[in-house]
Amino acid sequence: MEVRAAVAVGAGKPLEVTTVRLEGPRAFEVLVEIKATGICHTDEFTLSGADPEGLFPAILGHEGAGVVVEVGPGVTTLKPGDHVIPLYTPECRTCEYCLNPKTNLCQSIRATQGQGLMPDGSSRFSTLDGEPILHYMGTSTFSNYTVVPEIALAKIRPDAPFDKVCYIGCGVTTGIGAVINTAKVEIGSRAIVFGLGGIGLNVLQGLRLAGADQIVGVDLNPEKKEMAERFGMTDFVNPSEVDGDLVPYLVNLTKGGADYTFDATGNVNVMRTALESAHKGWGESIIIGVAPAGAEISTRPFQLVTGRVWKGTAFGGARGRTDVPKIVDWYMDGKIEIDPMITHTMPLEDINKGFDLMHSGESIRSVVVY
Amino acid sequence: MEVRAAVAVGAGKPLEVTTVRLEGPRAFEVLVEIKATGICHTDEFTLSGADPEGLFPAILGHEGAGVVVEVGPGVTTLKPGDHVIPLYTPECRTCEYCLNPKTNLCQSIRATQGQGLMPDGSSRFSTLDGEPILHYMGTSTFSNYTVVPEIALAKIRPDAPFDKVCYIGCGVTTGIGAVINTAKVEIGSRAIVFGLGGIGLNVLQGLRLAGADQIVGVDLNPEKKEMAERFGMTDFVNPSEVDGDLVPYLVNLTKGGADYTFDATGNVNVMRTALESAHKGWGESIIIGVAPAGAEISTRPFQLVTGRVWKGTAFGGARGRTDVPKIVDWYMDGKIEIDPMITHTMPLEDINKGFDLMHSGESIRSVVVY
Ligand SMILES: [Zn+2]
Ligand SMILES: [Zn+2]
Ligand SMILES: [Zn+2]
Ligand SMILES: [Zn+2]
Repeated sequence: MEVRAAVAVGAGKPLEVTTVRLEGPRAFEVLVEIKATGICHTDEFTLSGADPEGLFPAILGHEGAGVVVEVGPGVTTLKPGDHVIPLYTPECRTCEYCLNPKTNLCQSIRATQGQGLMPDGSSRFSTLDGEPILHYMGTSTFSNYTVVPEIALAKIRPDAPFDKVCYIGCGVTTGIGAVINTAKVEIGSRAIVFGLGGIGLNVLQGLRLAGADQIVGVDLNPEKKEMAERFGMTDFVNPSEVDGDLVPYLVNLTKGGADYTFDATGNVNVMRTALESAHKGWGESIIIGVAPAGAEISTRPFQLVTGRVWKGTAFGGARGRTDVPKIVDWYMDGKIEIDPMITHTMPLEDINKGFDLMHSGESIRSVVVY
Repeated sequence: MEVRAAVAVGAGKPLEVTTVRLEGPRAFEVLVEIKATGICHTDEFTLSGADPEGLFPAILGHEGAGVVVEVGPGVTTLKPGDHVIPLYTPECRTCEYCLNPKTNLCQSIRATQGQGLMPDGSSRFSTLDGEPILHYMGTSTFSNYTVVPEIALAKIRPDAPFDKVCYIGCGVTTGIGAVINTAKVEIGSRAIVFGLGGIGLNVLQGLRLAGADQIVGVDLNPEKKEMAERFGMTDFVNPSEVDGDLVPYLVNLTKGGADYTFDATGNVNVMRTALESAHKGWGESIIIGVAPAGAEISTRPFQLVTGRVWKGTAFGGARGRTDVPKIVDWYMDGKIEIDPMITHTMPLEDINKGFDLMHSGESIRSVVVY
């Protein structure tokens, strides 16, 4: 079939919105009509060329929601008409990783997904001339139709609005999951969140949901304060307004250090500050942000020997097929908010404007509505 | 009273075995006759001058066992004749740290202990001329009598031999506790231990006690192999005999990386290797060794984002008054071994020979028997 897609033709070049060819689903694959997709920093990371594993030409996008159109042979858990969110971290429920309760990093299709291919080693996308176009993160939601492995689709309730819950496919789950699955924050905790962009806001509301008593937000941009307060922040710190070192300031503000700190900046210096402002004896620091290629974190081992723990999280530690439908329910039940974070919507033709809005810092999230 | 002690008179100088004056116990303090004391790398770290917080003159030693002689006013949990092990990490059971199940780092007397003083801010030791001599780690076991706060004494069974269980006051508990309290190793785990000195051997036997399936030991000295096997090591790796990078070799040996890795070297490069040879998704790396002042650990944040956890441990995460008596029982019941690690014993007069044996690598542990 012929579909409309935004093709990433090369590093640093704008996406080209065009008509491409999409083959139907093979065994254990599903054809999904994408109804909406968010534009995420990870798409930008790849499109810019900064991602050393980025491949072109490819159809980016990993934060979508849509409807099942057709299922391939062997698919048993989905049928046409089901509403779904594609998962860049699949959940096969049979691999060594899925069977270990300590991780969500299903490895069953990792190798082919990293190469921009379906699990059988081929692509379903091609140009009208028949030249292959690669998939991206197993999802390729910058196309109005896409093919996704069955194990990489979360079935969600049919009354959830696509243009909001698509964000659960990445940012919402990453932020809330870091709190709930990775840190396992307890009621009454004190926490610090570094970086109040889309991920940071979702960490904030995850902390509110978990019953944290003090939720400190740290950002150099004072304009982030108002929205962050809406998502649960109790204290705002602008490092440019702090005299002297930030760590002792934050330790003092949190009465000895935070029980949990979260880096949502991707800056390795901030990651160190986050670790060192965690409480002696038990504070845990969670790295969420993606650092530039080759960047390294460092600290004195004394920080760990005196009880701090350094962790990271990917997709918020969530097992997508199991956890994403629950987060959709939380949204529908009013336990979490998404609407105020979707600051811009646009048709696929204007997708490059969504990237511009991200660069300029004007948007929290832009969503393409097909 | 006059007592016999080995006094550290200055950085890099041999201990001076001499007669010093010891005041009796004040409120909440206990006079202990020390019957035996191990000589630990931490004593050497301070004596050498490498410890930036080291103070002189002081009476070192923190790995002792002895008998209560006299208790000061207010002491309710100990009486003359009780057998005890002094604790450099006390357990007051009332401070914020003691009441938090995530840590063992009791802070109740930390400030004065760090200054070489009893909790009231003074020293009980002095020269015969009346010049004060500092305490060390709250224990000062390089003296045949010492005064220790009540909260820093573990009461142990009276039939345990002093010249063996003194080692539970530091190395045994540090190594076994890192496995049991900090890592909480599960039955069937795979583990790697870097550094097969006294601490490393105790990590090995902790892993055996916890039911680990694979226990890899890493050391540059092939002479460590035999003793390490006696304490539970299943695989020996000498990095000098590995072609290429050590991390992929260890990941392959442990079928994807170890569930738990332990650094008992204090070398920050080894700490990085230990982290990176932990299993993707769930591997945890525990820092036990003390690094040189100013040394830093580093890695790519990707290592943590893909599920590895970086932790440290002090005194094996043990709460001394509660846990040390249990470890003494384990020794008496044959669950753990100590005797083969006590390679040398000597009278106090020969204590400097114990340091020489440590330098030359001839001893695992030297014990001074009074
Ligand atoms: Zn994303
Ligand atoms: Zn799996
Ligand atoms: Zn020691
Ligand atoms: Zn305490």
